[in-house]
Amino acid sequence: MSHRRRTVFFVSDGTGISAETLGHSLLTQFEDIEFTQTVLPFVDSVAKAHESVARIEEARLRSGVRPIVFCTLVNDEVRNALRAADALVLDFFQGFLNPLEAELGTRSTHAVGRSHSAANNKEYLDRIEAINFALAHDDGLGNQELGKADVVLVGVSRSGKTPTCLYLALQFGIKAANVPLTPDDFDRGTLPGALEPHLKKLYGLTIAPDRLAEIRNQRRPDSRYARLENCRYEVEQAERLMRHFGVPWLNSTTRSIEEIAAKILQEVKLERRVY
Amino acid sequence: MSHRRRTVFFVSDGTGISAETLGHSLLTQFEDIEFTQTVLPFVDSVAKAHESVARIEEARLRSGVRPIVFCTLVNDEVRNALRAADALVLDFFQGFLNPLEAELGTRSTHAVGRSHSAANNKEYLDRIEAINFALAHDDGLGNQELGKADVVLVGVSRSGKTPTCLYLALQFGIKAANVPLTPDDFDRGTLPGALEPHLKKLYGLTIAPDRLAEIRNQRRPDSRYARLENCRYEVEQAERLMRHFGVPWLNSTTRSIEEIAAKILQEVKLERRVY
Repeated sequence: MSHRRRTVFFVSDGTGISAETLGHSLLTQFEDIEFTQTVLPFVDSVAKAHESVARIEEARLRSGVRPIVFCTLVNDEVRNALRAADALVLDFFQGFLNPLEAELGTRSTHAVGRSHSAANNKEYLDRIEAINFALAHDDGLGNQELGKADVVLVGVSRSGKTPTCLYLALQFGIKAANVPLTPDDFDRGTLPGALEPHLKKLYGLTIAPDRLAEIRNQRRPDSRYARLENCRYEVEQAERLMRHFGVPWLNSTTRSIEEIAAKILQEVKLERRVY
Repeated sequence: MSHRRRTVFFVSDGTGISAETLGHSLLTQFEDIEFTQTVLPFVDSVAKAHESVARIEEARLRSGVRPIVFCTLVNDEVRNALRAADALVLDFFQGFLNPLEAELGTRSTHAVGRSHSAANNKEYLDRIEAINFALAHDDGLGNQELGKADVVLVGVSRSGKTPTCLYLALQFGIKAANVPLTPDDFDRGTLPGALEPHLKKLYGLTIAPDRLAEIRNQRRPDSRYARLENCRYEVEQAERLMRHFGVPWLNSTTRSIEEIAAKILQEVKLERRVY
């Protein structure tokens, strides 16, 4: 029997990010069902597993259908305690640790909550440095330091540059600056002067004019800035400039921040500092 | 036979984030092995799967041992093409889609690369708004707007407030502001005045003084600001203020940005806007 709604839990001994990320990928394959999602992080003891089971049971009684539980639990006792839940429990660790142990010829540590712990100090400092760089070089700030950038994003205002730079920094430790292409540049018919020594580092974002108008209207309703004809003009001029200077670009219109960042990483062949 | 080094590939028809996140969680369970990791994103055709197989084969020949491949591939043909690789292929989708289909009483769409597509426009705009909010309310900026914040982080300079706010915005769509606690506040013996109407929204970050000195020394080497005794004083005073005003806090010293954000989300019981 099919239900249009289903409760989902992501249970983890750490942040829950792994369980949630993969679980969410799987759920997007079932478009016609509405999922109510709850993350239960830091479930690192049998007692906390019992609490989780109680919450799952409560959801089952409320909804009248057994919940789906995605879990990443390293400890066998904690995992077994969770399995007492009357739910479809899908275990993201159990099926994979054994083949990995066999392949690697060694036992896994079964240490709880390791995956996002700050064990790697170098990576942590690299991330912080990349975040500081993105903040200090957002929206054309600090242009004299573009030589230190791994990549410099260009594009019209609200084409997605800032979130992409922040994501590249947080997720990959990449130092990404961004410089807007503005009507001043279009009047002059050339890129901002500060970019000239760094042409090889440039990567462009473009966007469908109607989508741009929608986003800009959220920020400055009924402005000239947000008007569709102005958005059309700016996008056309920006693309012309990028074409002229041989700047590769992608269209951000239907892409998430994650997709834009992953595409840039792939196309620019950047060496990431964080895994 | 055990090898100290192993090549790992994350192969996905989308960004590769799901494969990488879970794969990385599993690999952290094998501390004594050094993994060389490569993400192969947007493998959404049989031809691209063949290219991936070639890269995996190349790595096998170079290293003399078969690689480990984590994959999230929805399309059966693409997945089968990848399976031709001489590697340990661990498939994060295959084992889970069938039980989910049975449980939900419906077929999955088998649509490629859905998980981080920007299909959900509302979530995208919420994320962008949260990112803009974090940028506009970083480091004590825009204090007159704290009423719009979901949470306001406080703590000494370099205790981890800014990256945490950005992560909360990007990952969860949470509007997080941050306000530093400074020697001026310690002299006056009270919180910054702008925080008074928002005491219930405050959440503190503290940090071990020696770790703080290390981080500050990266930014301003040999400064009074970075000196250990000054760090000790500031941390002690900040904790005293937070205790006095009943501000909950956590220690960021050994935690990653992900862990800090997940803890705050859990403890403040914030309603996230993005899944």
